[in-house]
Formats: sequence, C-alpha cells, structure tokens
Amino acid sequence: MSDEHPSKMKEFLRSRQKLVDEALDQFLPRANTKPKTIHKAMRYSVFAGGKRLRPILCLAAAECCEGTAEAALPLACALECIHTYSLIHDDLPCMDNDDFRRGVPTSHKVFGEAIAVLAGDALLTFAFELASLVPGWPRYSMKNVIRELAVASGSQHLIAGQVADLESEGKKVSLPMVRFIHESKTAALLRSSVRLGAMSANAPPKQLECIAEFGRTLGLAFQVIDDILDVTQTSEVLGKSAGKDQAAEKATYPSIVGIERSRQVAKKLTEDAHAVLKPFGRKAEMLHHLADYLLDRQY
Amino acid sequence: MSDEHPSKMKEFLRSRQKLVDEALDQFLPRANTKPKTIHKAMRYSVFAGGKRLRPILCLAAAECCEGTAEAALPLACALECIHTYSLIHDDLPCMDNDDFRRGVPTSHKVFGEAIAVLAGDALLTFAFELASLVPGWPRYSMKNVIRELAVASGSQHLIAGQVADLESEGKKVSLPMVRFIHESKTAALLRSSVRLGAMSANAPPKQLECIAEFGRTLGLAFQVIDDILDVTQTSEVLGKSAGKDQAAEKATYPSIVGIERSRQVAKKLTEDAHAVLKPFGRKAEMLHHLADYLLDRQY
Repeated sequence: MSDEHPSKMKEFLRSRQKLVDEALDQFLPRANTKPKTIHKAMRYSVFAGGKRLRPILCLAAAECCEGTAEAALPLACALECIHTYSLIHDDLPCMDNDDFRRGVPTSHKVFGEAIAVLAGDALLTFAFELASLVPGWPRYSMKNVIRELAVASGSQHLIAGQVADLESEGKKVSLPMVRFIHESKTAALLRSSVRLGAMSANAPPKQLECIAEFGRTLGLAFQVIDDILDVTQTSEVLGKSAGKDQAAEKATYPSIVGIERSRQVAKKLTEDAHAVLKPFGRKAEMLHHLADYLLDRQY
Repeated sequence: MSDEHPSKMKEFLRSRQKLVDEALDQFLPRANTKPKTIHKAMRYSVFAGGKRLRPILCLAAAECCEGTAEAALPLACALECIHTYSLIHDDLPCMDNDDFRRGVPTSHKVFGEAIAVLAGDALLTFAFELASLVPGWPRYSMKNVIRELAVASGSQHLIAGQVADLESEGKKVSLPMVRFIHESKTAALLRSSVRLGAMSANAPPKQLECIAEFGRTLGLAFQVIDDILDVTQTSEVLGKSAGKDQAAEKATYPSIVGIERSRQVAKKLTEDAHAVLKPFGRKAEMLHHLADYLLDRQY
C-alpha cells in the first residue's frame, strides 16, 4: 500500500484481514479431517496470501450501512471461498496453466490436477454451507443471500467471464467484449460482496442499490488496473507470471486502447465509484479509501 | 428394467422421469444464453440419458410422506445438477479419464477440458440457485435445505468419496475403506435425495430419520451393485467402459470379497432398506419397488 493512504485505513485493512483470516480458520474443516488431502488442499489455497479484498469489501459495506463486521463474517468468508475456488480452477493446466499465484505454487503444482479440481469444488460447495449460517434479516432472507451468491458466481456471471476470456484468446476482440468479460469475471462478485455486506446490515433498498453500483464500478476499475499491472509489473512484484495476458493473446484493456488510455479509464471508473457513495456521507469513509487504494496498488 | 416389476412401477418411473426432464428443461438457462458454449455444455450433460435416480427418489420420498412431487421438484432438479457435475468432473482426464458415459461422449471429449471443468462448476452453482427457489416449510427452513445439499456434496461426503477412491487406486485396501468410499461417494447424496423429498413434505422428524436410513442403505446397495456390474457387464450394456475398476485397480467390493459375496451383501442391504420403511406401510410402495428395481438392474 502506498504511503498516501491514511494510517486509519491501514489499521482498518489490517484488523479486518485478521478478522477474516481467523474466521476462515475457524470455519474451514481442520487439515487433519479425513480425507486429509482435500482439507489440506482447501486450506493451502485459502491461506496462500490473498489480499481478502472481497471479504473486506463485504465487511466495509456492512459497516457503512451501520451493520457489524460480525454479522457479515460468514458471508465474507463464503465470498473468499468462491474467489479461491475460481482461482484454483483458472490456474489449471487446461485453463490458464499458471504455476504460481501470490508467489507460491498453485494448487495443482502441489497436490496434482485431480485434487486441485476437487479442492475448488469443495470450496465452492463450502461457500454455500457458510452462507447457510446467517440468520437472515428483516429485509433480506436466506433466499436472497443464496441467490445473490449463486447468480454472481454462476454461468451468466463469474463463469461466463472465464468462458468469454478463454474464447477470446488469440482473437481480435472489441472493447464491449472486454467490458463484458470484466463485468462478468470481476465486477459481478465484487458487486455481490458489497451487496451481501449491506444485506447483513439490513440496509434499505435504496442504500443497497447505491452500494451495488459502487461495487460494480469498483470491480470494473479493479480489472482494468489488473490488466495494466500485468503489462507494467514484474512477476516478482505480482507474485504470478507477468505478461501472461499478452503471451496468451488475452482480451485486455491495454491491448485495445493502450496503457495511458487504460489508466484514464481506471481513474474515471474510480471517480464514478466515489460519486455513487455520496448519499452515505462520512459513513462511507473506508469504502472511499478502499477505492483509492485499489487504484494506486502496485500488485 | 426386468419384467418382474409391476406396470404401476414402470408407469411411476416414466411419469416422474418426464416431470424431472421437463422441469430441468424449464429451469436451466436456454442453450443460446450468452456465452452459448457453457449453457450448451451444461445441457449436454444434464440431458445425456441419466436415469434420474436421485430426483425420482426425492419425489417418491415426498409422496411417501404425503407431500407432492411439485413441491419437491426444485430440489429434485438440484440433486440431478449436483450428480451431473460430479460425473463431468470424475470423467476428466486427470480423474477417471472416461471417454464415454451413458453411451455418449463425455463433456471434455465434446467441449474440451476447460469447458468441462466450468460446466461442472456451473451445474454445482446452479444447484444452489435451484434450492433457493423452495419456500421452506414449517419444520424445515431454507437453512436446512441448503445445509443438507452442501454437506452431502461437500469435502466430507461426495468429494471425500472421490478423493478416497482416487487415493485407493492400485493399493490394497480394507473392506472398511471400501465402505467409507461407498458411504461418501454414493450413499450420502442418495440419503439426502430422500431426506430433501421428505423435508418438502414437512415430514415429522421420526419419518425423516427412517427415510434417511432407507436412502443410506439403498445407496450402499446401489454402489455394491455398480461395482458388480462393472465386472460382469459389457461396455455396450453399461454405456460406459466396463472393467475399468479392475484396470484402474480401484477399491471395490468384488475385488475384496468376490462377486458372489458381493451379491449377498447387496441383497442384504436391500432387505435392510425395505425393513426401515415398515412404519410407512402401503405409502412406501414405490420406494419398495425402487429398491427392488435397483437390486435387479442390469446397467
């Protein structure tokens, strides 16, 4: 994190990350649960150094809507399980074929392909078990929560993005197609992360709508920045192979409009994200900081 | 199906199969939904000639507990989606590497490995979206339903079975280990199939318990019979490669106790399944028939 971000924000990130890590450790089956391999593999990827962006956004959204981090925690952890499963499967040899992620070997490099597929399956399944722990709230029932998670990670969002991403490789794609990929593979789950946090705070529908738009716009900015970093950063800094998008002829923002224009797009999207938070006033302080932090990040 | 089974039973199977097929067709996203590949792949495997055993057991259990097939349908379809996802992933080259299933090429043979992994993921996710459609019942909330599905298909049951199955290949394994594999990879989801049906009928806890034990015992019998058929049948009859268990040195009943003893075990388990249905009297007629039908099946 760059130095411009206030220490309050640094402290927020640290404390919420700790909360999420402890909750994940509590929720996930012990590593020695039979069969050990699968539980080791689940934990290996969940504790492989993720930034916990989705859970932290979920908690921050809950607090912005005057809820508590505690109430949002099972959903925050469910989001991280879904995110982790998607990375394990994306990294498989038949997909993006990545050997490293966050500086450590990917699941299939450590446990083999079969266990990596199953560890992803198990984390996806476990996410719904976690979501079933919430009590439901006056405005939002468990039906809303399960639907939110299933739709955002289903064949018309998260998975749609991965499919479109794979199918665009080596092809000349349009900007609207890149936008579709970003909306699906990144923005949908970030949007749901903040929505689920707001639901756990029993936020009124109008607030839920604002927070959803914040999450979506932030998600789009996040993916444009990801595309930029893949070109401009070293593998060492990223903790994964840099330049892979170009090598695989992926459909990215920089490949179509160049780095400079991509930076402007990310900046504009971040401004939009700030703007939709206006009705929350000071209560959205941490969400504002998070948006700036993501824009300025170097990995 | 052999001729001994009454025409009433044949008619039951046919009508419930039709109900499930129509509901799956209604529920699943159209094949031309963007991105088309994933929705085609989801439908390809769901409509590749499955017997619909899990959904039919779910509906039969609902009716046995004086509920309706209609109320149980979203759960019946969710079970079929989970079963289909598990087959797609099990058939992958990194797992059992099967080219045929039910007489037609497996997902990865038709769509490639990446789409096959994603189609499995999408069906698993979609199962929870389907489960979120039920209204909940006085005795059983959506929490119970989601938990039931997630636990039965999670890392300590369905996935545990697949892991233990893979890890037992080529090893000398004990009968308790084979039983653990059967309990996990088959009995758990069959048990949940009838439990979910009974829940949709708002069955009293005592009934739920009986029906659960029926499903579990039936599931164990089913897998022992599956192991036997792999040895005794031709690939043509099975619609998948026969003799694969032996070739892969899988842990099976026949490999440890022989075919004859395995047949006795299957028969005894089926008798046990019949016995636990006693409290239901005539209302369990179709469940009794189903148990006999599964014992006598030739594929």
